Amino acid sequence: MKISYRPVGAPSKQRSAATRGRAGPRTRSPRAWEVTLSPEQLAASKAQRSPLYVQIVSAVVRDIRRGRLVPGQELPGSRTLAERLGVHRNTVLAAYAELQAEGWLQTHRARSTRVCEQLPEQSAPAAQRGRRPSSLGFALPAQPAPLAAAEQGLLLSDGTPDVRLIPRVALARAYRRVLRGRDSELLGYGDLRGHVRLRRALSAMLRATRGLEVSEQDVLVTRGSQMALALLGRSLCAPGDVVAVEALGYRPAWQALGAQGARLVPVPVDEEGLCVEQLARLAQRERLRAVYVTPHHQYPTMVTLSAARRLALLELARRARFAIIEDDYDHEFHYQGRPVLPLASADTAGVVAYVGTLSKILAPGLRLGYLVAPAPLLERCAAERAWLDRQGDLALECAVAELLEDGELQRHVGRMRRIYRARRDALLAALERHLPEVVQARPPPGGMALWARVRNVELDAWLARAAAQGLVLWSGRDFSFEAQPAPYVRFGFARRSAEETARLIARLARLLPAAGRR
Amino acid sequence: MKISYRPVGAPSKQRSAATRGRAGPRTRSPRAWEVTLSPEQLAASKAQRSPLYVQIVSAVVRDIRRGRLVPGQELPGSRTLAERLGVHRNTVLAAYAELQAEGWLQTHRARSTRVCEQLPEQSAPAAQRGRRPSSLGFALPAQPAPLAAAEQGLLLSDGTPDVRLIPRVALARAYRRVLRGRDSELLGYGDLRGHVRLRRALSAMLRATRGLEVSEQDVLVTRGSQMALALLGRSLCAPGDVVAVEALGYRPAWQALGAQGARLVPVPVDEEGLCVEQLARLAQRERLRAVYVTPHHQYPTMVTLSAARRLALLELARRARFAIIEDDYDHEFHYQGRPVLPLASADTAGVVAYVGTLSKILAPGLRLGYLVAPAPLLERCAAERAWLDRQGDLALECAVAELLEDGELQRHVGRMRRIYRARRDALLAALERHLPEVVQARPPPGGMALWARVRNVELDAWLARAAAQGLVLWSGRDFSFEAQPAPYVRFGFARRSAEETARLIARLARLLPAAGRR
Repeated sequence: MKISYRPVGAPSKQRSAATRGRAGPRTRSPRAWEVTLSPEQLAASKAQRSPLYVQIVSAVVRDIRRGRLVPGQELPGSRTLAERLGVHRNTVLAAYAELQAEGWLQTHRARSTRVCEQLPEQSAPAAQRGRRPSSLGFALPAQPAPLAAAEQGLLLSDGTPDVRLIPRVALARAYRRVLRGRDSELLGYGDLRGHVRLRRALSAMLRATRGLEVSEQDVLVTRGSQMALALLGRSLCAPGDVVAVEALGYRPAWQALGAQGARLVPVPVDEEGLCVEQLARLAQRERLRAVYVTPHHQYPTMVTLSAARRLALLELARRARFAIIEDDYDHEFHYQGRPVLPLASADTAGVVAYVGTLSKILAPGLRLGYLVAPAPLLERCAAERAWLDRQGDLALECAVAELLEDGELQRHVGRMRRIYRARRDALLAALERHLPEVVQARPPPGGMALWARVRNVELDAWLARAAAQGLVLWSGRDFSFEAQPAPYVRFGFARRSAEETARLIARLARLLPAAGRR
Repeated sequence: MKISYRPVGAPSKQRSAATRGRAGPRTRSPRAWEVTLSPEQLAASKAQRSPLYVQIVSAVVRDIRRGRLVPGQELPGSRTLAERLGVHRNTVLAAYAELQAEGWLQTHRARSTRVCEQLPEQSAPAAQRGRRPSSLGFALPAQPAPLAAAEQGLLLSDGTPDVRLIPRVALARAYRRVLRGRDSELLGYGDLRGHVRLRRALSAMLRATRGLEVSEQDVLVTRGSQMALALLGRSLCAPGDVVAVEALGYRPAWQALGAQGARLVPVPVDEEGLCVEQLARLAQRERLRAVYVTPHHQYPTMVTLSAARRLALLELARRARFAIIEDDYDHEFHYQGRPVLPLASADTAGVVAYVGTLSKILAPGLRLGYLVAPAPLLERCAAERAWLDRQGDLALECAVAELLEDGELQRHVGRMRRIYRARRDALLAALERHLPEVVQARPPPGGMALWARVRNVELDAWLARAAAQGLVLWSGRDFSFEAQPAPYVRFGFARRSAEETARLIARLARLLPAAGRR
């Protein structure tokens, strides 16, 4: 399938006029250039479902770029070309209109269609318009690509909730009510701190359950706790600033806090949580900008920061003037006694930035988190957010606020707390039954995963065997800032039923290397 | 309301045992410390709706921090305290359990409750637990806070769609169908590039309407175009890198691209769009990393980048090896002829990163945008996204994909195109009627706003008068990279009905300074 063009300078007006009435193919000039829409190209285009007119546009532009068509050169009339290509004339007219709109072609006294005179000289190599380039035409700056290796298989270590049990119908109903409500402006631009209803509902929740005397003014709604951490990283840290982190900890937080070039320094964690004395020594050596902690259920070890260390940490931050980034990610799921109140509830010096999430109590996929911080920091985080994604999804925020106002979410948490507690106990029983000599686990006081010591087995060999069977289990090394091996594994228990967990643990036991079996 | 404590060292066992059975108030020791829950504090707490037990916890912790209660000191029994405070005994038990969980208190042989021995010395000033600190306990790094001044009043310059006309019922229905569907994992963690259904629907749309031969592999779904720009800023630019921008342009893009410390350099814009010759001169002087352009309807002037300059820009980027960030934000709304195909459709060298959005064709509040870029760049952007907000809202993405698959969104765009075109003409008529000597506007070929020259009036004085009446109109200076005054204003026309627009223009005319009225 070919398009013939008349060479530049050939008399065109008469012939073009003569051609206009005719439907037959034009006489080919010996100097005509041709453009080919080869069967392969056409097939490829069809597979991509490109409209025909776009293919014609592409072919003509390609010819201009290749130099086969030069400025001033005439194109065949639309009838002629339509016939030659076996397409409807309207298709050709659409292509020519597009080419004119783009400025490739111009009409001469409404009679002939020619290549525009003002096109610059082209030195680009011949190439096909419309095909995606496979390589990059420029260098990327040297930055470490922070993407973790993709997980292959079933991850057994995550503390995600069981999304099958989420009140999906109630959520959909609330969303519909919000969308059908009077406030159509919910779908427009709005408050970048989050919808006031959600901020109000969250602050009521934080007052009632976390001892935080906050109002909606103190809350910034974010895309999960991850964005709260990213905003804090941007707001708190300049390149080279020192940020202390738990030596066993949460890697995505490290990425967010280190993304601005802050220097992260690990501080050990023991049975009482973060070693505040070691942090104090670090603060003497270095100008600390912030420390990132998970005091309630330390991630991943699940220990609770002791009262003595809480006091010491608050006092240290006040004296050394650094920020405490408190990630209170799963306080709702505490099974022994009441949840411990967060550091933020005792912060009188304005040193704590408190991060929370609805990922655990509702669903990770909704990406709803929040930040409570002293006003100057909260304002800076809001300003950073402005250029990041402008604002949250106010309609969704409103729908979730409704679930909180109705108590629907609180009831869901109550149900889940009982269920997850039973699943924790089922996991402990399965470990006791299938891996008694290998895994030593104490019941964690709360949370959605447990941290267990492993002995009598070559840990890496075991996990490699499991991974080869599609069962991915994270060991101490995966949580270690310095990738130090540590004889621990983390088991999530919230996401699966007791039966599912028991089957998986039995499978893991069968995958023990020979030396580890008893 | 006071809590009395026994001084340290006072014999406690017998008296505590003696007290246990009694309900009456205890004899106060002369050395007893007291904690006061004053009526003001209680009223404040009630206003904040703090649970009573949290108030008791706060009071005790406050006393420990103040040194009124010292390690080893005994607290009153729960019955005693309940009676003294006039609360239910369970409330006191809850408070004590919380204080024990936090490690402030410990029980002695299950008889008496005492302050923990291991508490560190406190030097913190006396302060009230639970009250939000008003100041910041640490210094923030010196960063320019990029928050723009908040808009007061009714903005007349924005090109936002009329969200009242959005197919809200169809969206709510699609969302409900998705949530009620089989795939509960939609609410969990998923593909950070966006749900495959939406990527597929978007790539079909881009093939059909924008001449991009893309598949779902080439698309990254983002939170509006704003996040796509933020990801590109992170992925492309190291501190000090030079990024060219249109001298009259889109400030939120500049913020996103400059957030990593890139040096932005403005390049003039004229009747044909970005002056590519001037860009070429810049590229000779400086090592350019990228240029940010809005070729289809230049923001804010609405001119279309000429074909000659399109070719020259692609060629320049190929030769000088920099990235073209093409923001194709509102191509769907083109009223004269067909929309011009984007630069990305002619990119054979892998130099174009193409940014699009559903903010104009659906709703800004849903924050759905997308990025199409050569694979290495797209991968890096996805990696950056991982620590920013982890992923999008897959359920919403799926619901919007359904609207695209059904053609619902395409029909909506068709309806809106007619409506917005009529609104554009109504705005032009209103300007012609009310401000004929002042505003010179040509019909823009598309888009949702027009750019008009202003004469015969002291522009700043006029806009100040309008702003004082709550009508905010942006002038050339607001779009100028270097805040240069320019005798232009931008009027949005999509968001309001013809009648609303006519009323507003009439009001603006009445607000002309005396010298500007004819």
